Amino acid sequence: MRAADLIHEPCSIARPLSFLGDRWTLIVLRQAFMGTRRFEDFHAELGLSRSILADRLTVLVDVGILRREPYRDAIRTRDQYRLTEKGIDLYPVLRALAAWGDKYLAEDGPFVLYRHRSCGGASEVVHRCAACGEHLTARDVEFSPGPGMADAA
Amino acid sequence: MRAADLIHEPCSIARPLSFLGDRWTLIVLRQAFMGTRRFEDFHAELGLSRSILADRLTVLVDVGILRREPYRDAIRTRDQYRLTEKGIDLYPVLRALAAWGDKYLAEDGPFVLYRHRSCGGASEVVHRCAACGEHLTARDVEFSPGPGMADAA
Repeated sequence: MRAADLIHEPCSIARPLSFLGDRWTLIVLRQAFMGTRRFEDFHAELGLSRSILADRLTVLVDVGILRREPYRDAIRTRDQYRLTEKGIDLYPVLRALAAWGDKYLAEDGPFVLYRHRSCGGASEVVHRCAACGEHLTARDVEFSPGPGMADAA
Repeated sequence: MRAADLIHEPCSIARPLSFLGDRWTLIVLRQAFMGTRRFEDFHAELGLSRSILADRLTVLVDVGILRREPYRDAIRTRDQYRLTEKGIDLYPVLRALAAWGDKYLAEDGPFVLYRHRSCGGASEVVHRCAACGEHLTARDVEFSPGPGMADAA
């Protein structure tokens, strides 16, 4: 299997990994969620090489997670990078990863607290049953082929 | 920034990406969640080269997401790979990614249905406020430094 093959796999985890399965892409995405929009700001915040940064921003634009939007600085018109709705919808993935990192890799407690802007309560990602509401672990889940699989077969 | 630096970043998204920010590691992890345990079965299911597969399994064992457990086949004792509790706790990350993939990359519907084993309801990952219960998007969340950040500063 090659990276480019993942987008054709009949699996909704494999397909996004064809472009998201790269640490720098995901770090750029995290930074976008922190409000960074301009190339120079991404560069200053992340310390990535300009070529890697430009490449990963282009990937995220090409797959529709970021969009380019012109803005005018002191000298000329440049592009900034804004999350699309498709990009915004990835937040639970990063939020779930942060919760795991907080639990296992942050000995002195979370580095960042994520709170509901309007009420101040903690943001949380919950894996649950849509029918009975029970909290689920991987052990509580069973798989079966969905409509897309029938079509892929 | 280099991959090895990520584990030292004061960020619970960056730290796990030091080892999880790799598509093959995540695909191996997905396969472990599907119940695969033996090297030959991972190899047959994923079609990865033996060296990449062995490397990624070792990474996942080294960070405590999988553990090796001996079993006896017809000829000799071999290792199988089992998810630890730390590994099981990553499930919401993959489940959230699958939900996003179902929404944006599965034109004919989900490839796999994830259901609550005991009641048959759909498994779902919800990003919500722990206090008021409201469903949250990235726009509803604000950040502040947590206890680990004070310590890292």
